[in-house]
Amino acid sequence: MKLYTWTVAPNPRRARMFVAEKGIDIEIVEAGDAENPAILSEAFCEKFPHRRVPLLELDDGDWIGEAAAICRYLEAIYPEPSLMGRNPKEIAMIEMWDRIAEWEGMMAAAEVFRNTSKAFAGRALPGYKKEIPQIPDLAERGKARLMMFYDKLDAQLATREFVTGDLFSLADITALCSIDFAGWRKLGIPEKCTNVARWHAAVSARPSAKV
Amino acid sequence: MKLYTWTVAPNPRRARMFVAEKGIDIEIVEAGDAENPAILSEAFCEKFPHRRVPLLELDDGDWIGEAAAICRYLEAIYPEPSLMGRNPKEIAMIEMWDRIAEWEGMMAAAEVFRNTSKAFAGRALPGYKKEIPQIPDLAERGKARLMMFYDKLDAQLATREFVTGDLFSLADITALCSIDFAGWRKLGIPEKCTNVARWHAAVSARPSAKV
Repeated sequence: MKLYTWTVAPNPRRARMFVAEKGIDIEIVEAGDAENPAILSEAFCEKFPHRRVPLLELDDGDWIGEAAAICRYLEAIYPEPSLMGRNPKEIAMIEMWDRIAEWEGMMAAAEVFRNTSKAFAGRALPGYKKEIPQIPDLAERGKARLMMFYDKLDAQLATREFVTGDLFSLADITALCSIDFAGWRKLGIPEKCTNVARWHAAVSARPSAKV
Repeated sequence: MKLYTWTVAPNPRRARMFVAEKGIDIEIVEAGDAENPAILSEAFCEKFPHRRVPLLELDDGDWIGEAAAICRYLEAIYPEPSLMGRNPKEIAMIEMWDRIAEWEGMMAAAEVFRNTSKAFAGRALPGYKKEIPQIPDLAERGKARLMMFYDKLDAQLATREFVTGDLFSLADITALCSIDFAGWRKLGIPEKCTNVARWHAAVSARPSAKV
Protein backbone atom coordinates (compact mmCIF):
# COMPACT_ATOMS: atom_id res chain seq x y z
CA MET A 1 0.00 0.00 0.00
CA LYS A 2 1.00 3.60 -0.61
CA LEU A 3 -0.61 6.62 1.00
CA TYR A 4 -0.45 9.67 -1.25
CA THR A 5 -0.48 12.87 0.69
CA TRP A 6 0.29 16.57 0.26
CA THR A 7 2.34 17.81 3.17
CA VAL A 8 1.03 21.37 3.16
CA ALA A 9 -2.68 20.53 2.90
CA PRO A 10 -5.14 20.03 5.79
CA ASN A 11 -7.21 17.12 4.50
CA PRO A 12 -4.42 14.56 3.95
CA ARG A 13 -3.17 15.38 7.44
CA ARG A 14 -6.28 13.56 8.68
CA ALA A 15 -5.03 10.32 7.11
CA ARG A 16 -1.44 10.83 8.31
CA MET A 17 -2.59 11.42 11.89
CA PHE A 18 -4.82 8.34 11.68
CA VAL A 19 -1.89 6.22 10.50
CA ALA A 20 0.36 7.64 13.22
CA GLU A 21 -2.21 6.90 15.95
CA LYS A 22 -2.53 3.31 14.71
CA GLY A 23 1.22 2.93 14.40
CA ILE A 24 0.85 1.53 10.90
CA ASP A 25 4.02 1.15 8.86
CA ILE A 26 2.95 2.41 5.45
CA GLU A 27 4.80 4.05 2.58
CA ILE A 28 3.90 7.75 2.40
CA VAL A 29 4.25 9.36 -1.03
CA GLU A 30 4.25 13.12 -1.58
CA ALA A 31 1.73 14.08 -4.29
CA GLY A 32 2.53 17.78 -4.23
CA ASP A 33 4.49 19.27 -7.11
CA ALA A 34 8.22 19.49 -6.42
CA GLU A 35 8.50 23.01 -7.86
CA ASN A 36 5.19 24.67 -7.02
CA PRO A 37 3.90 24.00 -3.49
CA ALA A 38 0.38 25.16 -4.41
CA ILE A 39 -0.39 22.36 -6.90
CA LEU A 40 -0.51 18.59 -7.02
CA SER A 41 2.00 16.97 -9.37
CA GLU A 42 0.92 16.25 -12.93
CA ALA A 43 1.96 12.62 -12.50
CA PHE A 44 -0.44 12.19 -9.57
CA CYS A 45 -3.35 13.84 -11.37
CA GLU A 46 -2.82 11.78 -14.52
CA LYS A 47 -2.61 8.52 -12.61
CA PHE A 48 -5.57 9.10 -10.30
CA PRO A 49 -8.67 10.75 -11.84
CA HIS A 50 -9.91 11.49 -8.30
CA ARG A 51 -7.31 14.31 -8.30
CA ARG A 52 -7.59 14.73 -4.56
CA VAL A 53 -5.52 13.73 -1.55
CA PRO A 54 -5.31 11.71 0.59
CA LEU A 55 -5.45 8.67 -1.68
CA LEU A 56 -4.55 5.09 -0.80
CA GLU A 57 -3.15 2.85 -3.54
CA LEU A 58 -3.64 -0.84 -2.78
CA ASP A 59 -1.20 -3.57 -3.74
CA ASP A 60 -3.56 -4.80 -6.48
CA GLY A 61 -3.46 -1.37 -8.16
CA ASP A 62 -6.94 -0.28 -7.07
CA TRP A 63 -7.16 2.92 -5.06
CA ILE A 64 -9.36 4.50 -2.42
CA GLY A 65 -9.98 8.25 -2.30
CA GLU A 66 -11.69 10.31 0.42
CA ALA A 67 -10.04 10.53 3.84
CA ALA A 68 -12.88 8.88 5.76
CA ALA A 69 -13.06 5.94 3.34
CA ILE A 70 -9.30 5.42 3.59
CA CYS A 71 -9.50 5.51 7.38
CA ARG A 72 -12.38 3.04 7.41
CA TYR A 73 -10.34 0.60 5.30
CA LEU A 74 -7.35 0.92 7.63
CA GLU A 75 -9.63 0.59 10.69
CA ALA A 76 -10.93 -2.71 9.30
CA ILE A 77 -7.53 -4.24 8.65
CA TYR A 78 -5.76 -2.70 11.67
CA PRO A 79 -8.56 -2.59 14.27
CA GLU A 80 -6.40 -1.60 17.29
CA PRO A 81 -6.51 0.98 18.73
CA SER A 82 -10.04 1.77 17.57
CA LEU A 83 -10.36 5.26 16.11
CA MET A 84 -13.80 4.82 14.52
CA GLY A 85 -15.82 3.16 17.28
CA ARG A 86 -16.17 -0.06 19.26
CA ASN A 87 -19.90 -0.68 18.87
CA PRO A 88 -22.65 0.34 16.41
CA LYS A 89 -23.73 3.42 18.33
CA GLU A 90 -20.21 4.71 18.90
CA ILE A 91 -19.33 4.05 15.25
CA ALA A 92 -22.36 6.09 14.15
CA MET A 93 -21.65 8.95 16.57
CA ILE A 94 -18.05 9.19 15.36
CA GLU A 95 -19.16 9.15 11.72
CA MET A 96 -21.74 11.87 12.43
CA TRP A 97 -19.21 14.12 14.16
CA ASP A 98 -16.50 13.43 11.62
CA ARG A 99 -18.95 14.65 8.99
CA ILE A 100 -19.97 17.68 11.04
CA ALA A 101 -16.28 18.58 11.49
CA GLU A 102 -15.65 18.05 7.78
CA TRP A 103 -18.68 19.85 6.43
CA GLU A 104 -19.11 22.66 8.95
CA GLY A 105 -15.42 23.04 9.86
CA MET A 106 -13.05 21.85 7.13
CA MET A 107 -15.28 22.90 4.21
CA ALA A 108 -16.04 26.27 5.78
CA ALA A 109 -12.31 26.92 6.24
CA ALA A 110 -11.73 25.77 2.64
CA GLU A 111 -14.41 28.17 1.42
CA VAL A 112 -12.45 30.99 3.02
CA PHE A 113 -9.03 29.85 1.86
CA ARG A 114 -9.77 28.64 -1.65
CA ASN A 115 -11.88 31.69 -2.52
CA THR A 116 -9.36 34.28 -1.32
CA SER A 117 -5.90 32.83 -1.97
CA LYS A 118 -4.26 34.21 -5.11
CA ALA A 119 -2.43 30.92 -5.59
CA PHE A 120 -5.81 29.15 -5.94
CA ALA A 121 -7.42 31.51 -8.46
CA GLY A 122 -9.40 29.32 -10.86
CA ARG A 123 -9.10 26.39 -8.46
CA ALA A 124 -11.72 27.22 -5.86
CA LEU A 125 -12.54 23.53 -5.39
CA PRO A 126 -10.15 20.58 -5.29
CA GLY A 127 -10.49 17.62 -7.63
CA TYR A 128 -11.57 19.33 -10.83
CA LYS A 129 -9.54 19.60 -14.03
CA LYS A 130 -11.82 22.35 -15.32
CA GLU A 131 -11.45 25.87 -13.97
CA ILE A 132 -13.54 26.61 -10.88
CA PRO A 133 -13.68 30.38 -10.36
CA GLN A 134 -13.41 31.96 -6.92
CA ILE A 135 -16.60 33.39 -5.36
CA PRO A 136 -15.79 36.16 -2.83
CA ASP A 137 -19.23 35.88 -1.19
CA LEU A 138 -18.50 32.23 -0.45
CA ALA A 139 -15.40 33.21 1.52
CA GLU A 140 -17.57 35.48 3.67
CA ARG A 141 -20.12 32.74 4.16
CA GLY A 142 -17.34 30.36 5.15
CA LYS A 143 -16.21 32.72 7.92
CA ALA A 144 -19.71 32.87 9.36
CA ARG A 145 -20.12 29.09 9.19
CA LEU A 146 -16.80 28.57 10.91
CA MET A 147 -17.86 30.70 13.87
CA MET A 148 -21.04 28.63 14.20
CA PHE A 149 -18.96 25.45 14.06
CA TYR A 150 -16.84 26.65 16.99
CA ASP A 151 -19.99 27.28 19.04
CA LYS A 152 -21.40 23.85 18.24
CA LEU A 153 -18.14 22.10 19.06
CA ASP A 154 -17.77 24.08 22.27
CA ALA A 155 -21.19 22.92 23.46
CA GLN A 156 -20.34 19.32 22.57
CA LEU A 157 -17.01 19.43 24.43
CA ALA A 158 -18.53 20.99 27.56
CA THR A 159 -19.32 17.51 28.91
CA ARG A 160 -16.89 15.30 26.99
CA GLU A 161 -13.13 14.73 26.98
CA PHE A 162 -13.09 14.07 23.25
CA VAL A 163 -15.56 15.03 20.52
CA THR A 164 -17.84 12.03 20.95
CA GLY A 165 -16.96 10.90 24.48
CA ASP A 166 -14.06 9.06 26.11
CA LEU A 167 -12.55 7.64 22.91
CA PHE A 168 -10.07 9.72 20.90
CA SER A 169 -11.34 9.22 17.36
CA LEU A 170 -11.30 10.27 13.74
CA ALA A 171 -13.83 12.97 14.70
CA ASP A 172 -11.15 14.57 16.90
CA ILE A 173 -8.59 14.30 14.12
CA THR A 174 -10.88 15.96 11.58
CA ALA A 175 -11.88 18.71 14.00
CA LEU A 176 -8.22 19.40 14.85
CA CYS A 177 -7.10 19.50 11.20
CA SER A 178 -10.03 21.80 10.35
CA ILE A 179 -9.31 24.24 13.17
CA ASP A 180 -5.57 24.37 12.44
CA PHE A 181 -6.45 25.02 8.77
CA ALA A 182 -8.79 27.86 9.81
CA GLY A 183 -5.87 29.31 11.74
CA TRP A 184 -4.07 29.97 8.44
CA ARG A 185 -6.56 32.79 7.89
CA LYS A 186 -6.50 33.99 11.51
CA LEU A 187 -9.84 32.30 12.13
CA GLY A 188 -8.63 30.29 15.10
CA ILE A 189 -10.56 29.39 18.24
CA PRO A 190 -12.62 32.35 19.57
CA GLU A 191 -11.75 33.31 23.14
CA LYS A 192 -15.20 32.41 24.46
CA CYS A 193 -14.85 28.78 23.30
CA THR A 194 -12.92 27.61 26.35
CA ASN A 195 -13.93 23.96 25.95
CA VAL A 196 -12.56 23.88 22.43
CA ALA A 197 -9.34 25.54 23.62
CA ARG A 198 -8.86 22.96 26.42
CA TRP A 199 -9.50 20.08 24.02
CA HIS A 200 -7.30 21.63 21.29
CA ALA A 201 -4.34 21.90 23.66
CA ALA A 202 -4.76 18.27 24.71
CA VAL A 203 -5.08 16.77 21.22
CA SER A 204 -2.32 19.00 19.81
CA ALA A 205 0.05 17.51 22.39
CA ARG A 206 -0.37 13.99 20.99
CA PRO A 207 2.68 12.84 18.99
CA SER A 208 0.39 12.11 16.00
CA ALA A 209 -0.49 15.82 15.74
CA LYS A 210 3.06 16.58 14.60
CA VAL A 211 2.59 14.88 11.21
CA MET B 1 -36.25 3.95 17.18
CA LYS B 2 -37.83 6.72 15.12
CA LEU B 3 -36.58 7.90 11.75
CA TYR B 4 -37.33 11.57 11.19
CA THR B 5 -37.67 12.42 7.54
CA TRP B 6 -39.03 15.15 5.28
CA THR B 7 -41.06 13.66 2.49
CA VAL B 8 -40.31 16.31 -0.11
CA ALA B 9 -36.52 16.47 0.43
CA PRO B 10 -33.84 14.46 -1.40
CA ASN B 11 -31.44 13.68 1.46
CA PRO B 12 -33.85 11.87 3.82
CA ARG B 13 -34.98 9.80 0.84
CA ARG B 14 -31.56 8.12 1.07
CA ALA B 15 -32.40 6.80 4.54
CA ARG B 16 -35.95 5.78 3.57
CA MET B 17 -34.67 3.82 0.55
CA PHE B 18 -32.02 2.18 2.72
CA VAL B 19 -34.66 1.10 5.25
CA ALA B 20 -36.92 -0.18 2.47
CA GLU B 21 -34.11 -2.23 0.89
CA LYS B 22 -33.32 -3.78 4.29
CA GLY B 23 -36.99 -4.42 5.01
CA ILE B 24 -36.63 -2.83 8.45
CA ASP B 25 -39.84 -2.12 10.35
CA ILE B 26 -39.18 1.32 11.81
CA GLU B 27 -41.42 4.20 12.79
CA ILE B 28 -41.12 7.02 10.26
CA VAL B 29 -41.92 10.50 11.56
CA GLU B 30 -42.52 13.49 9.29
CA ALA B 31 -40.35 16.45 10.35
CA GLY B 32 -41.71 18.83 7.73
CA ASP B 33 -44.03 21.60 8.85
CA ALA B 34 -47.70 20.71 8.46
CA GLU B 35 -48.62 24.12 7.00
CA ASN B 36 -45.54 25.18 5.03
CA PRO B 37 -43.96 22.42 2.91
CA ALA B 38 -40.70 24.40 2.53
CA ILE B 39 -39.68 24.34 6.20
CA LEU B 40 -39.00 21.83 8.94
CA SER B 41 -41.37 21.99 11.90
CA GLU B 42 -40.41 24.18 14.85
CA ALA B 43 -40.88 21.22 17.18
CA PHE B 44 -38.26 19.21 15.27
CA CYS B 45 -35.74 22.07 15.18
CA GLU B 46 -36.15 22.79 18.89
CA LYS B 47 -35.76 19.15 19.86
CA PHE B 48 -32.75 18.37 17.64
CA PRO B 49 -30.06 21.07 17.34
CA HIS B 50 -28.74 19.25 14.25
CA ARG B 51 -31.72 20.80 12.42
CA ARG B 52 -31.27 18.48 9.48
CA VAL B 53 -32.97 15.35 8.21
CA PRO B 54 -32.74 12.41 8.15
CA LEU B 55 -32.29 11.93 11.87
CA LEU B 56 -32.57 8.72 13.85
CA GLU B 57 -33.79 8.90 17.45
CA LEU B 58 -32.71 5.89 19.50
CA ASP B 59 -34.76 4.30 22.27
CA ASP B 60 -32.42 5.74 24.92
CA GLY B 61 -33.14 9.28 23.67
CA ASP B 62 -29.79 9.79 21.91
CA TRP B 63 -29.94 10.63 18.24
CA ILE B 64 -27.85 10.19 15.10
CA GLY B 65 -27.79 12.78 12.32
CA GLU B 66 -26.22 12.54 8.84
CA ALA B 67 -27.69 10.03 6.38
CA ALA B 68 -24.52 7.95 6.01
CA ALA B 69 -24.04 7.66 9.79
CA ILE B 70 -27.66 6.56 10.22
CA CYS B 71 -27.25 3.98 7.47
CA ARG B 72 -24.03 2.66 9.01
CA TYR B 73 -25.81 2.17 12.35
CA LEU B 74 -28.66 0.31 10.68
CA GLU B 75 -26.18 -1.76 8.61
CA ALA B 76 -24.48 -2.85 11.85
CA ILE B 77 -27.64 -3.96 13.60
CA TYR B 78 -29.42 -5.30 10.49
CA PRO B 79 -26.52 -6.65 8.39
CA GLU B 80 -28.61 -8.41 5.72
CA PRO B 81 -28.79 -7.64 2.88
CA SER B 82 -25.51 -5.74 2.90
CA LEU B 83 -25.81 -2.25 1.43
CA MET B 84 -22.45 -0.92 2.65
CA GLY B 85 -20.03 -3.70 1.74
CA ARG B 86 -19.08 -7.27 2.60
CA ASN B 87 -15.32 -6.86 3.12
CA PRO B 88 -12.91 -4.00 3.95
CA LYS B 89 -12.19 -3.07 0.33
CA GLU B 90 -15.83 -3.11 -0.76
CA ILE B 91 -16.83 -1.13 2.34
CA ALA B 92 -14.22 1.52 1.49
CA MET B 93 -15.19 1.68 -2.19
CA ILE B 94 -18.86 2.16 -1.29
CA GLU B 95 -17.97 4.87 1.23
CA MET B 96 -15.80 6.64 -1.35
CA TRP B 97 -18.53 6.59 -4.01
CA ASP B 98 -21.26 7.49 -1.56
CA ARG B 99 -19.18 10.56 -0.71
CA ILE B 100 -18.52 11.37 -4.37
CA ALA B 101 -22.25 11.10 -5.08
CA GLU B 102 -23.05 13.26 -2.07
CA TRP B 103 -20.41 15.93 -2.58
CA GLU B 104 -20.26 16.14 -6.37
CA GLY B 105 -23.90 15.21 -7.04
CA MET B 106 -26.22 15.97 -4.13
CA MET B 107 -24.38 19.09 -2.95
CA ALA B 108 -24.03 20.44 -6.48
CA ALA B 109 -27.78 20.00 -7.04
CA ALA B 110 -28.40 21.64 -3.66
CA GLU B 111 -26.19 24.57 -4.66
CA VAL B 112 -28.45 25.11 -7.66
CA PHE B 113 -31.74 24.61 -5.83
CA ARG B 114 -31.04 26.38 -2.54
CA ASN B 115 -29.47 29.41 -4.22
CA THR B 116 -32.28 29.96 -6.75
CA SER B 117 -35.51 28.90 -5.03
CA LYS B 118 -37.53 31.84 -3.69
CA ALA B 119 -38.87 29.62 -0.92
CA PHE B 120 -35.29 29.16 0.37
CA ALA B 121 -34.22 32.82 0.38
CA GLY B 122 -32.07 33.30 3.49
CA ARG B 123 -31.80 29.53 3.91
CA ALA B 124 -29.17 28.66 1.32
CA LEU B 125 -27.77 25.91 3.54
CA PRO B 126 -29.68 23.44 5.71
CA GLY B 127 -29.06 23.10 9.43
CA TYR B 128 -28.44 26.72 10.43
CA LYS B 129 -30.69 28.84 12.59
CA LYS B 130 -28.92 32.00 11.42
CA GLU B 131 -29.74 33.44 8.01
CA ILE B 132 -27.58 32.07 5.17
CA PRO B 133 -27.99 34.32 2.12
CA GLN B 134 -28.27 32.94 -1.40
CA ILE B 135 -25.25 33.30 -3.71
CA PRO B 136 -26.30 33.31 -7.38
CA ASP B 137 -22.76 32.46 -8.57
CA LEU B 138 -22.89 29.32 -6.47
CA ALA B 139 -25.97 28.14 -8.35
CA GLU B 140 -24.04 28.51 -11.60
CA ARG B 141 -21.07 26.66 -10.18
CA GLY B 142 -23.40 23.90 -9.02
CA LYS B 143 -24.70 23.39 -12.56
CA ALA B 144 -21.17 23.02 -13.91
CA ARG B 145 -20.21 20.58 -11.14
CA LEU B 146 -23.30 18.51 -11.77
CA MET B 147 -22.37 18.05 -15.42
CA MET B 148 -18.91 16.85 -14.40
CA PHE B 149 -20.49 14.44 -11.92
CA TYR B 150 -22.58 12.90 -14.71
CA ASP B 151 -19.43 12.37 -16.79
CA LYS B 152 -17.56 10.77 -13.90
CA LEU B 153 -20.47 8.49 -13.03
CA ASP B 154 -20.94 7.53 -16.68
CA ALA B 155 -17.31 6.40 -16.91
CA GLN B 156 -17.65 4.42 -13.69
CA LEU B 157 -20.85 2.67 -14.86
CA ALA B 158 -19.39 1.75 -18.27
CA THR B 159 -18.01 -1.48 -16.82
CA ARG B 160 -20.19 -2.01 -13.75
CA GLU B 161 -23.81 -2.97 -13.10
CA PHE B 162 -23.99 -0.78 -10.00
CA VAL B 163 -21.87 2.17 -8.92
CA THR B 164 -19.14 0.14 -7.24
CA GLY B 165 -19.62 -3.29 -8.86
CA ASP B 166 -22.11 -6.13 -8.53
CA LEU B 167 -23.58 -5.08 -5.17
CA PHE B 168 -26.45 -2.59 -5.08
CA SER B 169 -25.36 -0.24 -2.32
CA LEU B 170 -25.77 3.04 -0.49
CA ALA B 171 -23.63 4.59 -3.23
CA ASP B 172 -26.39 3.75 -5.75
CA ILE B 173 -29.04 5.13 -3.43
CA THR B 174 -27.18 8.43 -2.97
CA ALA B 175 -26.46 8.77 -6.68
CA LEU B 176 -30.13 8.09 -7.53
CA CYS B 177 -31.47 10.56 -4.97
CA SER B 178 -28.98 13.20 -6.18
CA ILE B 179 -29.90 12.79 -9.83
CA ASP B 180 -33.64 12.83 -9.19
CA PHE B 181 -33.10 15.99 -7.13
CA ALA B 182 -31.17 17.59 -10.00
CA GLY B 183 -34.14 16.77 -12.21
CA TRP B 184 -36.23 19.28 -10.24
CA ARG B 185 -34.23 22.00 -11.99
CA LYS B 186 -34.25 20.25 -15.38
CA LEU B 187 -30.66 19.16 -14.84
CA GLY B 188 -31.37 15.50 -15.45
CA ILE B 189 -29.11 12.96 -17.12
CA PRO B 190 -27.43 14.37 -20.27
CA GLU B 191 -28.22 12.39 -23.44
CA LYS B 192 -24.59 11.35 -23.94
CA CYS B 193 -24.47 9.60 -20.54
CA THR B 194 -26.01 6.35 -21.73
CA ASN B 195 -24.49 4.26 -18.94
CA VAL B 196 -26.04 6.49 -16.31
CA ALA B 197 -29.39 6.31 -18.14
CA ARG B 198 -29.31 2.48 -18.24
CA TRP B 199 -28.39 2.27 -14.55
CA HIS B 200 -30.96 4.93 -13.58
CA ALA B 201 -33.77 3.01 -15.27
CA ALA B 202 -32.76 -0.19 -13.46
CA VAL B 203 -32.44 1.29 -9.97
CA SER B 204 -35.58 3.41 -10.37
CA ALA B 205 -37.53 0.20 -11.00
CA ARG B 206 -36.67 -1.17 -7.55
CA PRO B 207 -39.63 -1.02 -5.12
CA SER B 208 -37.45 0.94 -2.65
CA ALA B 209 -37.16 3.82 -5.14
CA LYS B 210 -40.87 4.61 -4.68
CA VAL B 211 -40.34 5.90 -1.11
